[in-house]
Amino acid sequence: MEQNPVIAMLGRRLRLAVIGGGPGSFIGATHRRAARIDDRYEINAGVLSSSPEKSAQAGLEIGLAADRCYGQVEDLLESESAREDGADVIAIMTPNDSHYTYAMAALDKGFDVICDKPMTNTLQEAEVLHDKVMKSGLIFCLTHNYSGYPMVRQAKAMIADGQLGTIRLVQVEYVQGGKADESKPDPQESWHFDPARGGPSAVMGDIGSHAHHLIRFVSGLEVMEVAADIGAVVPGRVIDDFAGALLRFNNGARGSFWVTQAAAGVENCLRIRVSGTQGSLEWMQEIPQTLTFKPLNAPSQIRTPNGPGVLPLAKHSSRIVAGHPEGFHEGFANVYSDAAEAIAARRSGKQANPLCMYFPNSKDGLLGLKFIHSVIESSKTNGKWMRC
Amino acid sequence: MEQNPVIAMLGRRLRLAVIGGGPGSFIGATHRRAARIDDRYEINAGVLSSSPEKSAQAGLEIGLAADRCYGQVEDLLESESAREDGADVIAIMTPNDSHYTYAMAALDKGFDVICDKPMTNTLQEAEVLHDKVMKSGLIFCLTHNYSGYPMVRQAKAMIADGQLGTIRLVQVEYVQGGKADESKPDPQESWHFDPARGGPSAVMGDIGSHAHHLIRFVSGLEVMEVAADIGAVVPGRVIDDFAGALLRFNNGARGSFWVTQAAAGVENCLRIRVSGTQGSLEWMQEIPQTLTFKPLNAPSQIRTPNGPGVLPLAKHSSRIVAGHPEGFHEGFANVYSDAAEAIAARRSGKQANPLCMYFPNSKDGLLGLKFIHSVIESSKTNGKWMRC
Amino acid sequence: MEQNPVIAMLGRRLRLAVIGGGPGSFIGATHRRAARIDDRYEINAGVLSSSPEKSAQAGLEIGLAADRCYGQVEDLLESESAREDGADVIAIMTPNDSHYTYAMAALDKGFDVICDKPMTNTLQEAEVLHDKVMKSGLIFCLTHNYSGYPMVRQAKAMIADGQLGTIRLVQVEYVQGGKADESKPDPQESWHFDPARGGPSAVMGDIGSHAHHLIRFVSGLEVMEVAADIGAVVPGRVIDDFAGALLRFNNGARGSFWVTQAAAGVENCLRIRVSGTQGSLEWMQEIPQTLTFKPLNAPSQIRTPNGPGVLPLAKHSSRIVAGHPEGFHEGFANVYSDAAEAIAARRSGKQANPLCMYFPNSKDGLLGLKFIHSVIESSKTNGKWMRC
Amino acid sequence: MEQNPVIAMLGRRLRLAVIGGGPGSFIGATHRRAARIDDRYEINAGVLSSSPEKSAQAGLEIGLAADRCYGQVEDLLESESAREDGADVIAIMTPNDSHYTYAMAALDKGFDVICDKPMTNTLQEAEVLHDKVMKSGLIFCLTHNYSGYPMVRQAKAMIADGQLGTIRLVQVEYVQGGKADESKPDPQESWHFDPARGGPSAVMGDIGSHAHHLIRFVSGLEVMEVAADIGAVVPGRVIDDFAGALLRFNNGARGSFWVTQAAAGVENCLRIRVSGTQGSLEWMQEIPQTLTFKPLNAPSQIRTPNGPGVLPLAKHSSRIVAGHPEGFHEGFANVYSDAAEAIAARRSGKQANPLCMYFPNSKDGLLGLKFIHSVIESSKTNGKWMRC
Repeated sequence: MEQNPVIAMLGRRLRLAVIGGGPGSFIGATHRRAARIDDRYEINAGVLSSSPEKSAQAGLEIGLAADRCYGQVEDLLESESAREDGADVIAIMTPNDSHYTYAMAALDKGFDVICDKPMTNTLQEAEVLHDKVMKSGLIFCLTHNYSGYPMVRQAKAMIADGQLGTIRLVQVEYVQGGKADESKPDPQESWHFDPARGGPSAVMGDIGSHAHHLIRFVSGLEVMEVAADIGAVVPGRVIDDFAGALLRFNNGARGSFWVTQAAAGVENCLRIRVSGTQGSLEWMQEIPQTLTFKPLNAPSQIRTPNGPGVLPLAKHSSRIVAGHPEGFHEGFANVYSDAAEAIAARRSGKQANPLCMYFPNSKDGLLGLKFIHSVIESSKTNGKWMRC
Repeated sequence: MEQNPVIAMLGRRLRLAVIGGGPGSFIGATHRRAARIDDRYEINAGVLSSSPEKSAQAGLEIGLAADRCYGQVEDLLESESAREDGADVIAIMTPNDSHYTYAMAALDKGFDVICDKPMTNTLQEAEVLHDKVMKSGLIFCLTHNYSGYPMVRQAKAMIADGQLGTIRLVQVEYVQGGKADESKPDPQESWHFDPARGGPSAVMGDIGSHAHHLIRFVSGLEVMEVAADIGAVVPGRVIDDFAGALLRFNNGARGSFWVTQAAAGVENCLRIRVSGTQGSLEWMQEIPQTLTFKPLNAPSQIRTPNGPGVLPLAKHSSRIVAGHPEGFHEGFANVYSDAAEAIAARRSGKQANPLCMYFPNSKDGLLGLKFIHSVIESSKTNGKWMRC
Repeated sequence: MEQNPVIAMLGRRLRLAVIGGGPGSFIGATHRRAARIDDRYEINAGVLSSSPEKSAQAGLEIGLAADRCYGQVEDLLESESAREDGADVIAIMTPNDSHYTYAMAALDKGFDVICDKPMTNTLQEAEVLHDKVMKSGLIFCLTHNYSGYPMVRQAKAMIADGQLGTIRLVQVEYVQGGKADESKPDPQESWHFDPARGGPSAVMGDIGSHAHHLIRFVSGLEVMEVAADIGAVVPGRVIDDFAGALLRFNNGARGSFWVTQAAAGVENCLRIRVSGTQGSLEWMQEIPQTLTFKPLNAPSQIRTPNGPGVLPLAKHSSRIVAGHPEGFHEGFANVYSDAAEAIAARRSGKQANPLCMYFPNSKDGLLGLKFIHSVIESSKTNGKWMRC
Repeated sequence: MEQNPVIAMLGRRLRLAVIGGGPGSFIGATHRRAARIDDRYEINAGVLSSSPEKSAQAGLEIGLAADRCYGQVEDLLESESAREDGADVIAIMTPNDSHYTYAMAALDKGFDVICDKPMTNTLQEAEVLHDKVMKSGLIFCLTHNYSGYPMVRQAKAMIADGQLGTIRLVQVEYVQGGKADESKPDPQESWHFDPARGGPSAVMGDIGSHAHHLIRFVSGLEVMEVAADIGAVVPGRVIDDFAGALLRFNNGARGSFWVTQAAAGVENCLRIRVSGTQGSLEWMQEIPQTLTFKPLNAPSQIRTPNGPGVLPLAKHSSRIVAGHPEGFHEGFANVYSDAAEAIAARRSGKQANPLCMYFPNSKDGLLGLKFIHSVIESSKTNGKWMRC
C-alpha cells in the first residue's frame, strides 16, 4: 500500500473549493472524481453555478455543508481565506472566458489553483496570469489531463531517456464528431458556440490546446513555426470546427497537426505518433492502455501500464497490476494527485517526489495561447509561416 | 450533474469500515478507490492488517482517525456497532479463508457487507452464509467487479432485451501469466499458493469464479452440468494453475471454459463470446471500453460506453461522454456505488433505482462455490459430467 | 527476383489436373489461384463436375483445351497418364466422401497428389491411404492451408527454435457463423449437411480438422488424449455444429479446443494461443498478418511478415516487403508451391529446399482422422478421456 | 465459379509483355503475380533488365521462351507487334524516369499499356502522355494498386451511394520507415535516391502519389488548392523524405495530407479517414480487410470483404467468402484483372462489366503530377496556397 503523501506531509487531506461544474456540466463531475480517487483532497466548498440558488442546491447535492455553498466567487474566496479550516486550493472549471478573472483573484488571496484549459481566452491574459503565478510562488495546475495517462507519460519518459534517439517527425490529430450533426442549428446559447465566451477559436480552445500540449509534453520539443488553415466546414457556422497545421520544431523536426469536431461518428480520437532516429511511438486516447513502440530494425512492441519496460514516470502514474486498464478518470486524477503533492510540499516545506512535477502549469498555458494566436494569424494570412 | 443518491436518501454518505487491504495488498487500495469515486461512502474505520501494529500504522496512513484504527476484527465490529457515528457497511478484502467468518460476524452485528470473492472457501460455508444473508434482510455485495464494466452490462442488457435471440453458445477464457515464471519456486508463504488459505482450487478461486460469474451475468443462463480437467502444468506445483471445462446450460446451450494463471506473458485476458440465434457478442477485459456485436446477416458493430445504442443498464454504469475510456476502477466503483444505493434505500426505506440491483450477491457466491465444487469433482472422476 | 525452383529443376512448370471445383464451388477457384500465384504449375486438365456436360463447359471457361476437359475421373487419369505432355499432379477438391477413391486411383497411376481436407471420411480409409502414400514414394499434399500463412509458420519456427521454452498450454478455437441462421431449414441436398458425404462429424471435418492440424503444426506436440462433447445446438439439425474438447499433449501440456459453425455473425475466427515457459504466442486468422509474442517478463511484440525477427521458415513463406499484407490465397499458395518444389525435386532427382517440406501430408491426414474418431468416441461415452 | 471474362470474350488469355522487374526488383514479381492470380493474362515476353544478358537470363528463369527474352525495349515492341501471337499488352515497371518514353513507344505501336506509378516524372510529360492515350483509344492502366483493395472500393462505393452525405473532411497519411535508418549514408547509386531518375520529389513520387490518388478515388472529390511543406528531415539527404500539406477540395471540404519515409519502425501505414455529414469511414492498409464505418448517431460498424452490406464494386473485387482475408496481391490483381476486361472488351468489340472501369488511368496520372507540381511550388513559396 502506497502511503498517501499529502496526509504524510500535512497530517490531513488538502481542502478543495470548486468553482463551476454544476448542473449540466460534464467536466465538473470529472474534476471532482479526479480529486477523490487518490484521497489527497476533500471537497469542502464551492460555487457550482452562476445562479446562487442553483449553486446552493447543487452544493448540497454533492455533499457540501450548507455554509460553504457560496453564491458568488468573491464570497467563496473571501470566506474560505478567512476560515481556520478554509480551502487550500481553488479548482476552476467554468466557461473559458472567466478562467482569467477567477484564477487571478484566487492567486491574489494566496490559494493554489487548479484550472481547466485553455488557461485564458487571450494571449495577453495568459501573459499576465503566467507572470502572476511566477511571482506568487503558488502552484498553478492546468488540467491538460491527457498528459496524465500512464502510457502518455511512458512515451514522454522513453523519449527523455533517449530511446527514440533524435526526434524527427511528430503527428497529432484530435478528431471528434460532437459538432458534426447538421440537422439542427448550432445552439447559440451554449458558450461552446459563442466566440465571446469560448474564445477566438472554438476548436483550438476545446481540443487544439490539448493536442498542442500533448506533442510538447511527449516529444520534449517546442513548436517554433506554424502554417495553418482554420475555419468551419459546416455551412453557416460562426465558430471554427477544424484546424489543420504544419509544424516546425525547435530541433528541426517537422510535424502535422489536425483537429476537428465535425467528423461525424468519431468519438474522441486523440492520436499521436512521434518518430526519432531510433524508432516511433504511437498512442491513441480511445485505447489509452497501450502504447506502441516501433523500434528501428526490431519487432514492434506493445507497452502497457505496469507492464515490462515501464519507466518510473509511468509506474508512478499507474495504480494496479498490468492488464487492468485505467481510464480517463485515473489519468485526470494523476494530474490532480501530482498537483496535490506539489501543493502539500510547498505548504509543509517538504520535498515532493520529483515524479510529481510533470503536471501542466501556467507556462504550458501561456505557450498554448501563443500557439492558438499563431495558428489564427497564419490562417488569416493565406498560410504564411508564423513564429509560436 | 447526477445527484448523489445516497446523500439524497440519507442526508449523508455511508460510513464504511474496511477489513484487510493493508500493506502489500493490491486489492485493498482498489476497494477503497472504488468506494471513493462516486462519493457514496466515507471510509472511517478499519483493520488493515492481521498485525495490530501494522493495522494502526496503515490506518493512519490512509487517513483514519486513530481511535478507529482497530487491531482486531471483533473490536471493530463491536465498537463500530456501538458508536453513534459508527460504520454502516463492512467491506471484507482479506485472504479467502477468512471471508466466511468475518462476513458472518458482520451480518450478526447488523452491518451490510461488501465481500471480495470467492465468497467462501467451501460449498458448505457458502450455503450457510447465503442462508444467513437471506434471513437477515441485509445487503450482501460480492465484488465480482468485472460485471461492473459498462460494456459487460451492455452485453447483459442486450441479451436480456432479446437482441441476440435464444442463446446457443458461450465461451469464456480467463488467462493470466502471473504464475508462469518457473525460474523460482512458488512462494509457499503467500496465501495465494497455500490451499488451506486460498481454497481447494487456487485458479478457480482467483479467476475461475470471476469467469463463472461473468457468463451467468451476461448470458442470463445457469450452468447445469460441467465436465472438467484441472491441475497444474508447472511441475511440482501444489496448487492448480489451469482449469478447462465443457459446459451445458439450462436452456441447452453449450459452452467452453478455460482459465489459467500459467500463460507466460499474458496480462489479464478475460474474454467472453456469447452467440444467440440473432448474433454474437464479444468482449475482452483488456480493452473493456468496446463491445463487439456481430448480428446475423448484418455488419458487425463496435459498441462503446455512452455511445449510440447503449441500453439503460450500461448508461447507468458510465460517467462520461463517449470516447473517454473508463477502466477497472470505474467498473469496480459501479459495484460499490450500486450496493451503496441499495443499502441507502434499505436504511431509509426509500426506493433504489432498479438499475442498481445488478451487483453480485450471496446467491451468486453460492452458485460460484457449487460450480467450483463440481469442477473439482468432475476432474477427479476422469471428466465425468457433474451437475452444478 | 527469386528464381522459380520448378522451372530451374524441370525446365518447365508442373502440369496439374484438377478434380472437382466446378460451378458453385468456393474451394475450386481457390485451389487454382493458389496453383497460379507462384507460377510453379500450369493447369491443363480437369473434371470439374460430376456432370460430364457441366465439366466440359466449366473446363472451357477456365481455359482448358477441349480434349482435356474430361467427364470422368477414370478417363482423366487414364488419358493424362498416357499423354506425353500429361499431367504430373492431380489436385482433388471434391466432396469429402470421394477423396479416398480418387486419391487412391491417382496414386495407382503414379501421380503426385494434392488433396483437400479431411483426407478421408473414415479412420480406416485414412490408414489405407497413408500406407499407400508411404509405399508409393509419391508426394501427397493435404491442403491444411492455414499452416501456409507466414505468421503461422513464424510461430512454428519460434517454438521449434526454443523461443517459448517448454510448451505448457495450447488453446485453439475455430468459430464460424455459416450454419447459424435458423430461419430456414438446413439444405439437405448440400453435401455439407449430409453425413454420408460430409463425414461422421460435419464440424470436425470442415473446421475441426484444420484446428487440430494447426495446434500440432505450431506447437510441435501431439494430442495424446481428448475428452469431448460434440453435437448440434441448432434444434433438429442432423449434423454436428459444435465440438468442445479438453486436450492432453504428449509432453504433459494441456489444452482447450472449441469449434463451431453456429456462432451467428462470426466470420472465420480461427485463433490459437500457445504458452511455454518463456512466453506465449497468439494468432488469429482474421488478421493473419500479425503474430503477437508475449515473452515472459518483457514487453509483448507484434511480429509481421518480413518484419524484424522473422525466421527462415516465415521468410520463405512471404513474398513482399513488410507492411504489405498477404492473405488467404498467398497462404494457400505456400502449400501448393512447397509441394511443387518437393514434386519437382522428386521427379528431377534434385534437392528441394528443406524449408519446402512443411506442407501437410498423409500422416497429418491420418492423425486428423484419429483425432476426429477419438472426439466422437469420447462424446459418445459421457466425456471419457480417449487416446488419440 | 465465375467465368473468366477474357477467355469468354477473346477465346484466349491476353498476352502480356513486361518491361522491367528483373533481379532485385520488388515490384516486378508483384506485377507478374497480379497478372496471374485471375488467369486473364499469360506472360510471354519481356525485357527484365537494362542489361541484355541479365534480361535474357531473368526471362528464362521466369519461364519465357528464349526468343521472347529481349535485350532492348525497342526490339520487344518491334518483334511483338510483328508476331502473329505477339503481346497484346505492355506492362512497364521500370524506374520512374523511363515510364514516359516506354509508354509513348508502346502506345505508338498500338499496345494497351499497364504502367507503374508515378505516370511520369514531369507534369509536361504527363500532359503529353495523357493526350496520346486519349487520342489513341487504347487502354492505359496506372497501377495505383491501393485502389484495388475491396474495402477501399467499398468506401468509394458507399460515398458514391450517398451513405456519408456531403463530404466535409478528408485525412490521409502514408507513413513508412524505409528511409529512416541514418546509420549508413543514402545509397546514391539507387534510383530511389537520385532525383534525376526518381523524379523531383522522391517521397511524393513513391508514396505521395498513392495517397493523392486514394483520397480522390475514395472521396470522389478533386483537390483544388494545396499549401505544403516538403523536404528532408534526415540531415544531408538530397531527396525529400517527408511532405505535409493542407488541402481544399472542389466542394469546400478540407483536408490533411502527411507522407514520409523517415518514420523509423513504421512499415507501410497508409491510412485514410473521410467524414461526411452522415458519418465517417476509416481504412488502414496494414489491416486492409476491414473498413470502419462510423455513422452519425448510430454504432460504428466493421465492414469486411463479402460481408453484409457490401456494395457491388466491393463484391466485384473480392474472391472468397467473408472472413478469409485477401491481401496486397489480390488488390493489385484487381487492377490488372479489371484492365484485362477493359482491354478484352476493346479488342473484341464487346461490353466490359461497368464495375471493371475503376482502374486508375492516364487522367489520374496527370492529376497526380499536377498535385506533385503544386506541392513543390507551394513549399518553395513559404506555404502559399497553390491551385492543383
